Amino acid sequence: MSTATAIAHPNIALVKYWGKRDSAINLPATGSLSMTLDIFPTTTTVSLDDSADHDVLVFNGAERTDGPAERVTRFLDIVRDLAGSALRARVETVNTVPSAAGLASSASGFAALAVAAASAYGLDLDAAALSRLARRGSGSASRSVIPGFAVWHAGDDDASSFAEPVDAPDLAMVVAMVEKGEKAVSSREAMRRTVLTSPFYPAWVSSTAESLEAAIEACRAGDIERLGRITEVNALRMHALIQSCDPPIRYLSPVSIEIFDRIAALRDTGVDAWATADAGPNVVVLTRPESVSAVTAALDGVNELAVAHPGPAASLLPRTDG
Amino acid sequence: MSTATAIAHPNIALVKYWGKRDSAINLPATGSLSMTLDIFPTTTTVSLDDSADHDVLVFNGAERTDGPAERVTRFLDIVRDLAGSALRARVETVNTVPSAAGLASSASGFAALAVAAASAYGLDLDAAALSRLARRGSGSASRSVIPGFAVWHAGDDDASSFAEPVDAPDLAMVVAMVEKGEKAVSSREAMRRTVLTSPFYPAWVSSTAESLEAAIEACRAGDIERLGRITEVNALRMHALIQSCDPPIRYLSPVSIEIFDRIAALRDTGVDAWATADAGPNVVVLTRPESVSAVTAALDGVNELAVAHPGPAASLLPRTDG
Repeated sequence: MSTATAIAHPNIALVKYWGKRDSAINLPATGSLSMTLDIFPTTTTVSLDDSADHDVLVFNGAERTDGPAERVTRFLDIVRDLAGSALRARVETVNTVPSAAGLASSASGFAALAVAAASAYGLDLDAAALSRLARRGSGSASRSVIPGFAVWHAGDDDASSFAEPVDAPDLAMVVAMVEKGEKAVSSREAMRRTVLTSPFYPAWVSSTAESLEAAIEACRAGDIERLGRITEVNALRMHALIQSCDPPIRYLSPVSIEIFDRIAALRDTGVDAWATADAGPNVVVLTRPESVSAVTAALDGVNELAVAHPGPAASLLPRTDG
Repeated sequence: MSTATAIAHPNIALVKYWGKRDSAINLPATGSLSMTLDIFPTTTTVSLDDSADHDVLVFNGAERTDGPAERVTRFLDIVRDLAGSALRARVETVNTVPSAAGLASSASGFAALAVAAASAYGLDLDAAALSRLARRGSGSASRSVIPGFAVWHAGDDDASSFAEPVDAPDLAMVVAMVEKGEKAVSSREAMRRTVLTSPFYPAWVSSTAESLEAAIEACRAGDIERLGRITEVNALRMHALIQSCDPPIRYLSPVSIEIFDRIAALRDTGVDAWATADAGPNVVVLTRPESVSAVTAALDGVNELAVAHPGPAASLLPRTDG
């Protein structure tokens, strides 16, 4: 039986993905820019099973039959369609990033699943095709396929919406884990509510497209200060956008705000550090590698910290069995 | 020598004023809706002095010669122009609301100054004219002239931009004083930055105009729940708007967010309570008079609390001298 194991890492967006143009195939309203991390990997094994009549998902050691399992089956249906196969699969995934707490566990999850499933079903896909495939599982997974800094081009259709690498200066991130629990409103539901109820959504789309252009330019020019300023402004605009929904959604907790305050104060002392946050209370600080210790010192006492550098592409692990 | 003393109270907006259409005469981009409070009065005496060659401002017992004094003189110039007078004045003002901490001290200040100065300079102005005059000193002061609930019509020009009373159900407010210090960025500067740098500003203007219509309708219908929901959504949208500036401005502190969280939790238990905040960290909770104790209990330990009910119009105090 065909089997394959892949590893992928989460990514943190510097220019955010928020809002879909086509939710059936996860076409985003705007492009985005991210750094794939070298921590919190997800490892996923896909084993085809010619005797099975349904897929099986084992997540962190426990078999799931609820929403996540259905989402995996819908994703495998896309892979089967591409491969011309009807075989069901057993998916075993081990996720080391806290789930659903705004740290993009679905990004590493679907990136690893895309790479493992493509291999197990015998598809020969290049990086762009893997990125497109991962996107179908979870939009931001398109970026976790790519090493280091990635630009996800919004695209016009399935073929043109994928991530690719972009040159960037040497940077690090400090992840401040504020809460590890599941968030009250999922990103999926919050994105839907944003598009339906926020008066700010159209302006978010147009301004983020501009911010992305500027951020890519800053990346290529190695202009860390400009990239950092764009990152923090864009993150606060995304949270502003989400907060403008009706009913409002607020992902930043009192501790998150405290961290934004501390990073602003640290910046006032001359340290290059900018805060961002995905759809949850955790805050991630973008900084120079040599300033990591200044950032961790500034965040002293603020829960659990993790330091990340640009991570590798999602990739297959060598076969260890047989 | 002519002298007059007036008293006025701050007001808290349920639908916010944020952004000017014409800053020379404080024409707002949108109308707004507020409740004038019965606490934190400002008392101001204006005494004309035919021997003086400049105005004098005594603020809480101390003579000021800086920005506030210049602002008072610019305001008195408008009054002198209306009255055809060249006389300088001594202005003594006692303000019981913490200044510049987002509790609209300039609203009660310029409302009291408008009423006292109009009387001292012999102007006979009706409520709408007093509201227009107070607006010239500080936009939100136009509403503190009016008792209870007030709608400030945006208007097209100086003549049409004034506040007037609106019927409303029985409501109370609990003011949670988070910080009393001066804020880092003044409302004036923050409004300017919003108009220049926030991509969300045009949508704020159009959506707030819609929210105002809905809020006035809810007020007149006595629909407290609808009014409360509009109030909290509008407040969070204003803070979202401000946060979307470049560089960002964040007025809500960790404690402010904690209060919004507690009020949301209280609401989940069936208590009608909604949070709002002006341009600062203090949070004000709109509730039914019979729910004030439930709100103060929910805010136990959160700094200093004050309870307010709909307050009176700005008015002259009877002469006690001579």
